[in-house]
Amino acid sequence: MRICIIGFGAVGQGVARVISMKRDKVREKYGLDMELVAVTDSTGAAVSEEGLDPDLLLETKKKTGKVSEYPEHGVSDISGLEVMNEVEYDCLVEVTPTNIEDGEPARTHILAAFRAGKDVVTSNKGPLALSYSELIAEAESNSVQFKFEASVGGAMPILNFAHETLAGCDINSVFGILNGTTNFILSRMAKEGSSYEQTLNEAQQLGIAETNPAQDVDGIDAACKVVILANSILGRDVSFKDVEINGISKITPEAIYLAKKEGYLIKLIGEVSNEALEVSPRLVREGSPFAVGGTLNVATLKTDLAEDVTVVGKGAGSVETASAILSDIISVWKSRR
Amino acid sequence: MRICIIGFGAVGQGVARVISMKRDKVREKYGLDMELVAVTDSTGAAVSEEGLDPDLLLETKKKTGKVSEYPEHGVSDISGLEVMNEVEYDCLVEVTPTNIEDGEPARTHILAAFRAGKDVVTSNKGPLALSYSELIAEAESNSVQFKFEASVGGAMPILNFAHETLAGCDINSVFGILNGTTNFILSRMAKEGSSYEQTLNEAQQLGIAETNPAQDVDGIDAACKVVILANSILGRDVSFKDVEINGISKITPEAIYLAKKEGYLIKLIGEVSNEALEVSPRLVREGSPFAVGGTLNVATLKTDLAEDVTVVGKGAGSVETASAILSDIISVWKSRR
Repeated sequence: MRICIIGFGAVGQGVARVISMKRDKVREKYGLDMELVAVTDSTGAAVSEEGLDPDLLLETKKKTGKVSEYPEHGVSDISGLEVMNEVEYDCLVEVTPTNIEDGEPARTHILAAFRAGKDVVTSNKGPLALSYSELIAEAESNSVQFKFEASVGGAMPILNFAHETLAGCDINSVFGILNGTTNFILSRMAKEGSSYEQTLNEAQQLGIAETNPAQDVDGIDAACKVVILANSILGRDVSFKDVEINGISKITPEAIYLAKKEGYLIKLIGEVSNEALEVSPRLVREGSPFAVGGTLNVATLKTDLAEDVTVVGKGAGSVETASAILSDIISVWKSRR
Repeated sequence: MRICIIGFGAVGQGVARVISMKRDKVREKYGLDMELVAVTDSTGAAVSEEGLDPDLLLETKKKTGKVSEYPEHGVSDISGLEVMNEVEYDCLVEVTPTNIEDGEPARTHILAAFRAGKDVVTSNKGPLALSYSELIAEAESNSVQFKFEASVGGAMPILNFAHETLAGCDINSVFGILNGTTNFILSRMAKEGSSYEQTLNEAQQLGIAETNPAQDVDGIDAACKVVILANSILGRDVSFKDVEINGISKITPEAIYLAKKEGYLIKLIGEVSNEALEVSPRLVREGSPFAVGGTLNVATLKTDLAEDVTVVGKGAGSVETASAILSDIISVWKSRR
C-alpha cells in the first residue's frame, strides 16, 4: 500500500514514527506492506516511488524543519495537491492542521483523493465538522474507504468501537470528556484550588495548552468532535453551527469547591443524542468513570442492548493519535482484500 | 444465515430475544437475514427449515420449560449433537452452561460444527479455558469463523476491541475486574461495612450470586476469562491450570476498612501478561476507573502505542450478553461476504 502523508506536524511525524516501528509486524500479521511514497509540509515535499525512509524523514524534519530537504528526493515549493496529482499512491493520510473556518486545505485534499479513487484516513476535524455529508457521499460514489477514528478521541477509540465492536447494538447517545487540555485544567483547579487563569498559564508552560488556547478552552475542539460523533454514530446530519457551546473560562475555584463538597467534579462534557448537541461544563459524580483526571478522554455510549459501555484513553499525543491512524490504515487494507 | 442455538438458558433466550428485536434492523443495515432453524435445550429441540418464531420459542419455554413443546416443530429426547447432524445450518450458537471440568458438551458441539464446515459463536468459557489451541487449530484447518466475545466480558467488549479497534497496537497486558458478582459483593461490603457471608447471602437473594457461588467467589469464572484473554489477545498458549487463583471469601470488613482509610478499594482482579496469569484480590485506588461498583466489569489494556485504554461495561445479563453474540454473528457474516 503506497501511502501519501499530507501535513508533517505532530500527527504526521507520529505516523512516520509508527510506520517505522510497526512496519515489519504489520506485514507479518496482516500481509500489509506500507510504503511511504510522498510526504508534504508547508515548505514542499519528499517524493519517491521506491519509498521514503521514515526515520530519515523525521531526522530531516527535525534538523531543517523541512521535508523538502530530504536527501535526493526533496522538492521545494510544491503544494500538497500538486503532489497528490503527480504521485501514484493508494491511501491518503490527511493530517494538516484543523481549520474550523472552511475546513481547507484538508477538504480539497480529501475530495481530490476520493475523485481519484483513493482511500483516505484523516485526523482532521475541520472538514468533518463542516462538510460531513458531502465527504461521505463523495467517498461512497467513488467506492473508496474513508476512516477518521483519530479525529475524535486521539488514542481513545470510539468510532470503530461503536460501528464494529458494538455492531449488534444501536447507540442512542454519547456523553463524554472529549478534550484533554480542558480536562487537565479542570482537574488541576480541583486539586490545587487554583484560578482558571493561573492554571491555564501552567498548562501552557507544560505544553498541554497552546499559546492561543481558544480551540480547547472555548469548547471548539470538543464541539467538532460532537458533530463527528452525531453524524457518524447517530446517523444525524448536523454541522458545527448546530452545536450549543460553552467553554470553561468562567469556571471559578469557588464553583469547583462547592461541587466538590457535594461529591461532584466539574468537567467539560460533550453530549450527543437525537435531542441534544452540546458542549458545556457539567457536574459529574466523584467515583464515576467521568472522574478521570489528567489529559484523559472518556466517553459513554448508551446502547439499546448492552446498556452503558464506556471507553477511557489518551485523547492526544503524537504517537498515540498516530496509532489510531495505523488501525484505520489496517482496516482499509482488510476491506480492500 | 441459518442459525442453530444449542442451549436455551438465560443466554440462549437472550439471543432469541435479541434476534426478535433486531432482525429487521440487521437485515436493513447489513443485508443479513437471520433465520433460527433449530433451538435445543436439555429436554429436546424445536426444528424447522422454514424458521422458528423467536417470540413463540420464548413463550413456549416460559410456559412449559421445554423448547420441545414448540407447536408442530417440537422434538423430544434428541440431543444437541443429533440436531446438529440432522439440520442444515450455517452458524452454531453454543450457549450451554460452562463446565470447567472437561468443557463438555460444548467442546464436542463446537468441534463437530467446525468439522462440518460451520461457523461458531459461543459464550461458553469451558472449552476455551481448557482446549483453546485445539479449538483454534480445528477452526483454522476447516476455514471457518470462531468468535467468542461474550465469553469474557458479557456486554463489555474486549476481544474484538483489542483485535479490531486497536489493530495498530500490540497489547502487552490486561488488568481487569472480570466478574460482576464478586464486584457487587466487594462494593457492597465497602459501602455497608457488612461481612462477607452476610453480603453473599444478600447477593444470592437478589439473584446476583448463584446458590452455589463457588465459580464466582472462588475466582474460577475470572480465571477462565484470564485464560481466554491470554490466549486470544497475548497469543500465549495457556490453560486453566496455569492460573494462580485466590477468591474473595477471606476478605474481611476490617481489611476493606483499612484499605479505604488509605484511599483504596479491594477488588478481585484478573491480571494477564507474559509474566503473570493471576486472579486475586488487589488494592485499587479510589477515583481510578477500577473503582466502579455494582456488577460492572472493567479492563485496562496496556498497549505499545496508545498507552492505557480502558473499557467499562455490564459483565452479565441475558440480553446484554446476547448483544455480544449478535455483534459476533454480524462479524461472521461480514467476513463471509
